[in-house]
Amino acid sequence: MAKVKFCAVFGARPVSEQMRPYFEGADCVIAADGGLMNLRALGVEPDVCLGDYDSGPMPEGREGVIVLPRQKDDTDMHYAARRILAMGAKRAVLLGGMGGRLDHTLANLATLVYLTEHGVDAILADERCEARVLLRGEHSVPPREGWYLSLFPVGGSARVTLRDVFYELQSETLTASFPLGVSNEFSDKNASITVEEGALYLLICKKEPERF
Amino acid sequence: MAKVKFCAVFGARPVSEQMRPYFEGADCVIAADGGLMNLRALGVEPDVCLGDYDSGPMPEGREGVIVLPRQKDDTDMHYAARRILAMGAKRAVLLGGMGGRLDHTLANLATLVYLTEHGVDAILADERCEARVLLRGEHSVPPREGWYLSLFPVGGSARVTLRDVFYELQSETLTASFPLGVSNEFSDKNASITVEEGALYLLICKKEPERF
Repeated sequence: MAKVKFCAVFGARPVSEQMRPYFEGADCVIAADGGLMNLRALGVEPDVCLGDYDSGPMPEGREGVIVLPRQKDDTDMHYAARRILAMGAKRAVLLGGMGGRLDHTLANLATLVYLTEHGVDAILADERCEARVLLRGEHSVPPREGWYLSLFPVGGSARVTLRDVFYELQSETLTASFPLGVSNEFSDKNASITVEEGALYLLICKKEPERF
Repeated sequence: MAKVKFCAVFGARPVSEQMRPYFEGADCVIAADGGLMNLRALGVEPDVCLGDYDSGPMPEGREGVIVLPRQKDDTDMHYAARRILAMGAKRAVLLGGMGGRLDHTLANLATLVYLTEHGVDAILADERCEARVLLRGEHSVPPREGWYLSLFPVGGSARVTLRDVFYELQSETLTASFPLGVSNEFSDKNASITVEEGALYLLICKKEPERF
């Protein structure tokens, strides 16, 4: 059986050593613009560097550098997503792409939707949260001690049945104007999530005070 | 003419002195749970403190404390939003509510949609970004030197015409899977945004590298 191709894309937000399990074993590592600084700090050699390099120096004296025009429709992260799709990736992790400027975070969530819709098992993660997109169908999420589970609609609304968690939902509609699905608690069983209409962001976030 | 009632709600993420212009002149200041620490640091006395106080000590020896149950559908920020609506607020700023755990940020964006749909001129802001919700109709945004303008659909898609900016859009559909509206540049005129279908998040974010 052919091995599933797994790609890791690094954005410019700091990525700590603690995140290593998320990208270990990647078949392809991409540095999206300032993400190269993360890879240097982690001692990882990227296969491809890409970006418009408008906010930092261009990597010199190396192969695998793709210089994107400054005027373009794609963000660097989205361009990287197209690239890993073309390379046949079936699994992807996007790091260094959330928690900073909200425009970047929301753009990277869009890229996460794009990858998922194209059949890639993709997550966007930082030290405190993992985000995935759940398309229509049944999903099972193993419980994680000390973490919350939250659901948000990708579109204007999504209908979901949620079982084996603290706050269950029976064919309930989540909307863009009320965060009903936030901060749920795992039980000791796998959380069972059936997306009946639309699509959801699934967030698994560490229980720790916001301040620290 | 009656003065428009203006409320400021503080969440638990750090709010620096630099944000003072955003809440100066507020008729009502609400500390949502850990937001009280921000207000103490800023030397501002809240009118109401609310929260389930599960992640910090309850404010003691003072009036205006509302203790919410731990098991509830509303987040503290959403409860605060209902409260300021009931108080007749027409303008609101939500601070200390983004850039940390992504579940909190997305929940607070939902609260922003809720306030806007209920006729409140509301923003969610931190040191680097201001978020608003634009409902169907025409909007005009004054240019800001050194800041980007970005648009994202609130629902699955939104149709927009965008003029007097660097990347113009003519009755274009923004979707949840492609961040077409990100990092636009102001011209020297007001940006003209016509939301033809759906609703948009308008983000105005400072041009600074993600890393710092």
